[in-house]
Amino acid sequence: MSERLAAQLAKAVGAPNVLTDPAELAPFLTDWRGRYRGAAQCIVRPANTAEVAAVVKICAETQTPIVPQGGNTSLCGAATPDGTGRAVVLSLGRLNRILAVDRQNNTISVEAGCLLAAVQEAARAADRLFPLALASEGTCQIGGNLSTNAGGVQVLRYGNTRELTLGLEVVLANGEIWDGMRGLRKDNTGYDLKQLFIGAEGTLGIITAAVLKLFPLPRTQTTCWLNVASPSAAVDLLNLAKTVFDAQLTAFELVSETALGLVLKNIPDSTRPAAASPWYVLAEFSEAAPAAVESWLAKQLASGAVADGVIAQSAAQAKKLWALRENISEAQKIEGISIKHDVAVPVSRLPAFLERADAALASAFPGIRVVAFGHVGDGNLHYNLSKADAQQNTAFIDSQPAVNQIVHDAVHALNGSISAEHGIGQLKRDELLRYKSPVEMALMRSVKQALDPQGLLNPGKIL
Amino acid sequence: MSERLAAQLAKAVGAPNVLTDPAELAPFLTDWRGRYRGAAQCIVRPANTAEVAAVVKICAETQTPIVPQGGNTSLCGAATPDGTGRAVVLSLGRLNRILAVDRQNNTISVEAGCLLAAVQEAARAADRLFPLALASEGTCQIGGNLSTNAGGVQVLRYGNTRELTLGLEVVLANGEIWDGMRGLRKDNTGYDLKQLFIGAEGTLGIITAAVLKLFPLPRTQTTCWLNVASPSAAVDLLNLAKTVFDAQLTAFELVSETALGLVLKNIPDSTRPAAASPWYVLAEFSEAAPAAVESWLAKQLASGAVADGVIAQSAAQAKKLWALRENISEAQKIEGISIKHDVAVPVSRLPAFLERADAALASAFPGIRVVAFGHVGDGNLHYNLSKADAQQNTAFIDSQPAVNQIVHDAVHALNGSISAEHGIGQLKRDELLRYKSPVEMALMRSVKQALDPQGLLNPGKIL
Repeated sequence: MSERLAAQLAKAVGAPNVLTDPAELAPFLTDWRGRYRGAAQCIVRPANTAEVAAVVKICAETQTPIVPQGGNTSLCGAATPDGTGRAVVLSLGRLNRILAVDRQNNTISVEAGCLLAAVQEAARAADRLFPLALASEGTCQIGGNLSTNAGGVQVLRYGNTRELTLGLEVVLANGEIWDGMRGLRKDNTGYDLKQLFIGAEGTLGIITAAVLKLFPLPRTQTTCWLNVASPSAAVDLLNLAKTVFDAQLTAFELVSETALGLVLKNIPDSTRPAAASPWYVLAEFSEAAPAAVESWLAKQLASGAVADGVIAQSAAQAKKLWALRENISEAQKIEGISIKHDVAVPVSRLPAFLERADAALASAFPGIRVVAFGHVGDGNLHYNLSKADAQQNTAFIDSQPAVNQIVHDAVHALNGSISAEHGIGQLKRDELLRYKSPVEMALMRSVKQALDPQGLLNPGKIL
Repeated sequence: MSERLAAQLAKAVGAPNVLTDPAELAPFLTDWRGRYRGAAQCIVRPANTAEVAAVVKICAETQTPIVPQGGNTSLCGAATPDGTGRAVVLSLGRLNRILAVDRQNNTISVEAGCLLAAVQEAARAADRLFPLALASEGTCQIGGNLSTNAGGVQVLRYGNTRELTLGLEVVLANGEIWDGMRGLRKDNTGYDLKQLFIGAEGTLGIITAAVLKLFPLPRTQTTCWLNVASPSAAVDLLNLAKTVFDAQLTAFELVSETALGLVLKNIPDSTRPAAASPWYVLAEFSEAAPAAVESWLAKQLASGAVADGVIAQSAAQAKKLWALRENISEAQKIEGISIKHDVAVPVSRLPAFLERADAALASAFPGIRVVAFGHVGDGNLHYNLSKADAQQNTAFIDSQPAVNQIVHDAVHALNGSISAEHGIGQLKRDELLRYKSPVEMALMRSVKQALDPQGLLNPGKIL
């Protein structure tokens, strides 16, 4: 780092908040999965929006690339700098204040560096629900959730992070601050600029604060484990449940017997909740009378829509059912490395996707093991692949590009998405070119050019 | 119109679909309220997206401004050309096909020229709800609803048009077609481009088709008329109802005694549903057990949160209660002209807004009559002003700019919006400059410049 840049940054944020010691830098230069390793001139840790703006201004003037970083939990390398060492990593962690909770407006205003868990907790303390919930909630920061439009298990009822956002504050590429911290349910005064920055992975501006929606805390939740014959039966059941319970249906997760089998094998204290079945649904109902869920389930058992089923009789039992779903990734990790996909198709095309992808893979890679599970209510599947034999698996992992292409071609043929929840980052940047039309790529580039003409904001991500 | 342009357009859409006869043009050149009158070279009526693209290409090459028009029901002059006579009005009405209904995915794909009522009807025929509902639904087109991010009475439960949209097809300023017709609940593959075009009033591209969300049709609805002491009591009651009924609370409208009085006076067959009160709430619950609503209301009556209340005992009675709310505009029209505002503030600030604006207006314009009503659940008020005496009122109307400034300054001081539902069009373009920061205006202009560098798409609207 040039002495001049170091002095300018130290002046902006205070010398102790400009990290240059390689040992201090290391955790900021690699991603959570350890797939990427980058280099940077320094880590800058501003304390507030004005300091973020000052840093960005300095970088704009010196043409220094900026990599914004929250909790560094990206699954796509979106927060890891490239290898050139030219970038400054801008860590938002010190912007961690809950700014306001407005119970009557059902909003919470937060700085970007708040942990997701801290936002949830502040909402709960005001007897409200902030519904975004993710495995990494104790580590990830809300600014990262906003920049990746994070999903999770409650999207079915509450939407993605985009739908949970009413206002933003953003530091633009030239260091100006856009104050869009409005807590309004309706506002049709020109272009809805916040939409540009949500899900843009820090490539169009740096989100420094947000106004987010809150909801009533659900008092009653009923959790069921339901055996279904096929993904198609699961989609039918989803619609049967929606018709009766509408917004009271708050989660509807699909689990294959293969996925459950790995959990039972590898996770201690896991027990099979009902008879074996090729597929299962984990459904959660909020605020519905438990008797209404029971009588609905009885009807589904009678009609054969559900072959067997269990309703959790206690919070502890509900937690155990959820653990079966949540431990799939962990259970799979114990089995060895696998090739993962985070895809979405229209809910109606889920069965077709599984048929096509399963068949194409079985033919190209005999003996392949498909671990499929996910948010069937959103058409979102985590479709993970490995071989059962460890040695074969190592060879198989080398085929990742060919495997990805088979899976993503099947997704694309059904008008689906090759990244439902996790974003593009550096991981899927090249694949984006394969599946997006030239018109769409040109549109994205023109937006990028308009908002970040020097191309300094998180370069090499998405585009 | 030059012969060359006439020939090109006739070749693109067929000669009978290029209107030039002044009598045929007239209805396209003025707005629904009759506030604006413009001029145009011709009206072009393409039959499909390819023809829209051909027209836009011709206009781009000849630098001809384009004014897209749906049902021509804008309340802000957004679909009326300026007076120069240079523009071509592009009427979308022939793009009126329902393209697909996917019951399992809960989506409907429609062309932009479909009447809103036709979209609602196609959904209902598939046993689904398309929840957007507006007074103009028999005339307005879904392309216009999308371009203005239309609201309505069900936003509390289902969101604005933006939240109801999963995919778009758009003809860009250069005549290229962007196919974003994806019916996905989750898609994080780069910038969410559809957000740019929703609510942009045709200034960034021309929406030609959309994929929209559907919901289960509610089977049970319970409608109540509730007497409350003040707007503040209404906001408290809103949160009490939300806590118990959550998403089952599907409408929560505020009506002042002044507004009700005008309806009782001017609309035949209107009757007072309960004792007189300074303020009323019209609440609608969907899928809630009627007994649950009754017992909740009994509790509110006992606590004094509600002074008097009526639950509709039949669909006919519910319709009569809704008519009291829906006829306010009509009743006010009969009283003579008034100065209208469509504003939003955080729900918690509604009482403060009414206090401030009422006081400032009473002091500046003694004898002013405030007719306030609206979607309190969204913080959205229609705040309409007149004088009781007809002669005084005529003079008062001339003070519109001063009145607007008082009202909109009060909104702005509470971090609100000067256009909650209706957009900017040409009506509020100058006011936008007063209330938006230079940073925000510059951002909007850079987006406009990126997507429509020649400035041919609906010039003079928003910016």
